[in-house]
This record gives sequence, C-alpha cells and structure tokens, in this order.
Amino acid sequence: MDAREAVVAATQEELIENGYDGLSVERVAQRAGISVATVRDAWGDADALVDLLFDEFGEHELVLMNTGSVDTDLRALAAGIAAFYGVPRLRATFRALVYSADRSRGAAESLRRFWTQRLARAAEPVRRAIAAGDLPAGTDPIEVIRMLGAPFYYRMFITLEPLDDALAERAAAAALAAARAGVLTRQAS
Amino acid sequence: MDAREAVVAATQEELIENGYDGLSVERVAQRAGISVATVRDAWGDADALVDLLFDEFGEHELVLMNTGSVDTDLRALAAGIAAFYGVPRLRATFRALVYSADRSRGAAESLRRFWTQRLARAAEPVRRAIAAGDLPAGTDPIEVIRMLGAPFYYRMFITLEPLDDALAERAAAAALAAARAGVLTRQAS
Repeated sequence: MDAREAVVAATQEELIENGYDGLSVERVAQRAGISVATVRDAWGDADALVDLLFDEFGEHELVLMNTGSVDTDLRALAAGIAAFYGVPRLRATFRALVYSADRSRGAAESLRRFWTQRLARAAEPVRRAIAAGDLPAGTDPIEVIRMLGAPFYYRMFITLEPLDDALAERAAAAALAAARAGVLTRQAS
Repeated sequence: MDAREAVVAATQEELIENGYDGLSVERVAQRAGISVATVRDAWGDADALVDLLFDEFGEHELVLMNTGSVDTDLRALAAGIAAFYGVPRLRATFRALVYSADRSRGAAESLRRFWTQRLARAAEPVRRAIAAGDLPAGTDPIEVIRMLGAPFYYRMFITLEPLDDALAERAAAAALAAARAGVLTRQAS
C-alpha cells in the first residue's frame, strides 16, 4: 500500500467514525502510519483530504455499458449504483462526504465538482441513444441521469428510507419513460 | 405572538445561524424572550425543538388541488415545492433540518416521520386519479410523489445545483410519464 492509498483509507475511516469535524491531517497521518509533514505536503488540510476522497470515488465502478440497448445500459448503471450503496463502508463514506458539504465550503465545492464530472461520464449511453434516434432529439442526457440517480439519494438523505431491491429497475425505467415522453429536453432558459 | 410562535421563530433563526450543534433550549429561550424553564417544560431539549419545527413545516403550504386533472394537480404541487424553496428563509431552515439528521438520531427520526406523513398527504391527487382510471391500476401513489419530489432534493443536497425555473414542470411531467408507463407500481417485496 503506497502513501496515497494509506491516506485514502485513513481518511475514509476517520470520516466514517468522526465526520468532517473530526477530520484532521494529524489524525489521518497517525492512522495511516505516515508522518504529519508528509501528509501535509501532499494534502494540506481537511478539505484537501475530502477532495482526495472524491477523486477516489470518481474512479469507482460507474457501470458504463454499450450493449446497443439504452434500456439495458441504464438498468446496468442503476444496478451499479444500488450495488455501490449496498456496501456499508462505501455508503457510510459517501454519507459523510455529503454531510461534509454542510460543514465546509471547500467540501461543498468538491461535491459539486464530483457530480459535474460524474454526471457527464454517466450520460454517455444516453448521448449514444439520442444520436441513434432511440431517444427523442433534444433530450438532455444529463437530466436523464439526474432522474435516474435522484431516487437513490432522496431515500438516503431526505426521507431516510431503505433502498428496496426493485429501486434500480424502477429508477432506470422511470427515467427512460420520462425521456421517451419528451419531458427531459434541454432547457431554453 | 404566543410562546409557541416565538419558540418556533427563535429555533428557526438559531438553526439557520448555528446549525444543530448550536441549538439549545437556553439560546432559544433567550432569543424568544421567554424563561428557560418555560421552554424546557414544553420542549425538553434540542431534539424536541427540531421536532417542533418539523411540526410547523408539516403545516406549510402543501399545494393540494382537486381540479379533475391529475396533470394539473401535480403541476400545482410541484410549483408549490419550487415556490417554498424559493423563499431563502424557508430553504435555509429546511437545509438545517435535513443536516440535523446527521447530528442526532432524534432529529433523523423526526425527519423520517415528517416525510411519512407528508408523502401520504401529498399522494391524495394520485389516489384519486388511480380510482378514476386516469393512472394505471396498481400504481403506488407514494412512489409517484417521491418521483416528483426527488429532483428538487437531489439538486439541493447532492449535486448542489440551482433549482431552475423549469424544474417543477419537468418533475411533475416526468413522474406522470413514469406512472403512465406503468413503472411506478406497488412492490411485491
């Protein structure tokens, strides 16, 4: 395990246990078994550690398929989201990251940037389907992905309901139905 | 202004300014100009104050119409949500309440209860439309309302994007399109 990996793992543990308020370069360095100076040189403060974790999450298993069927591709994407949040450690880390946005402007900025990049990448199968004429011209690919993802986060952070087994299937099907109805078109405004 | 109103207003200000961690019976009493003993008798601790605020929000302008058209009813409901979060003070309070769920198990319980009641009430126009045969039999009314609301909260708390002007219209239309496609049916599980 190199220094970066050790710092990622330690940041994750610290965030899960103590939240953003408990996150510090000193504690992460101690947990990672690395000198404070080394950690501080590469990641200067708590916000830099949060940003590092978002980078790491950005690499995570976004299920992007190209089966020729946008329905299959989006079902796989939604199933991937469900599988991700089915892992308690990943779910706990992401929860702590989202709540960090309330504690720090820097963390909020990292969260925003994370989603801008993530949504753009996840929209690839939708872009292909529009180009192929499988979804209405003028459909906003990012909006389709927002619609697919929103139900997961709504339950996790707003209504605090469990993610039931059928959610992935339903979220993908609902986003596709809305797109096919021509509802998810680009905004004039 | 009676004591309850004064305490509601003071709790709201305290939460907006200092978040859940800064919320205390003492500070709220001082702000409301009421004795600590009086506040404590009625609302014993910070969680009781949070719960009071959820009660108050539960009374807030849920736009429930009965026009005979579920499309019109749900567009009005979504426009009502947009209008609500367009008021900076209400939005700031609700943000603080949602983030409170990360700081306290009691606040999380209040948030969960708030949504259980709110979703059940908001689903009334959908129930009527199903009974009238305007939406497919087997449609889950609560799930239609979740689908309509999720995009607002996804932007406010997850992607940290603005609520654009067309969002209400789009959210209502998307939920209806998904319901009409038969995607939002009751779970067997």
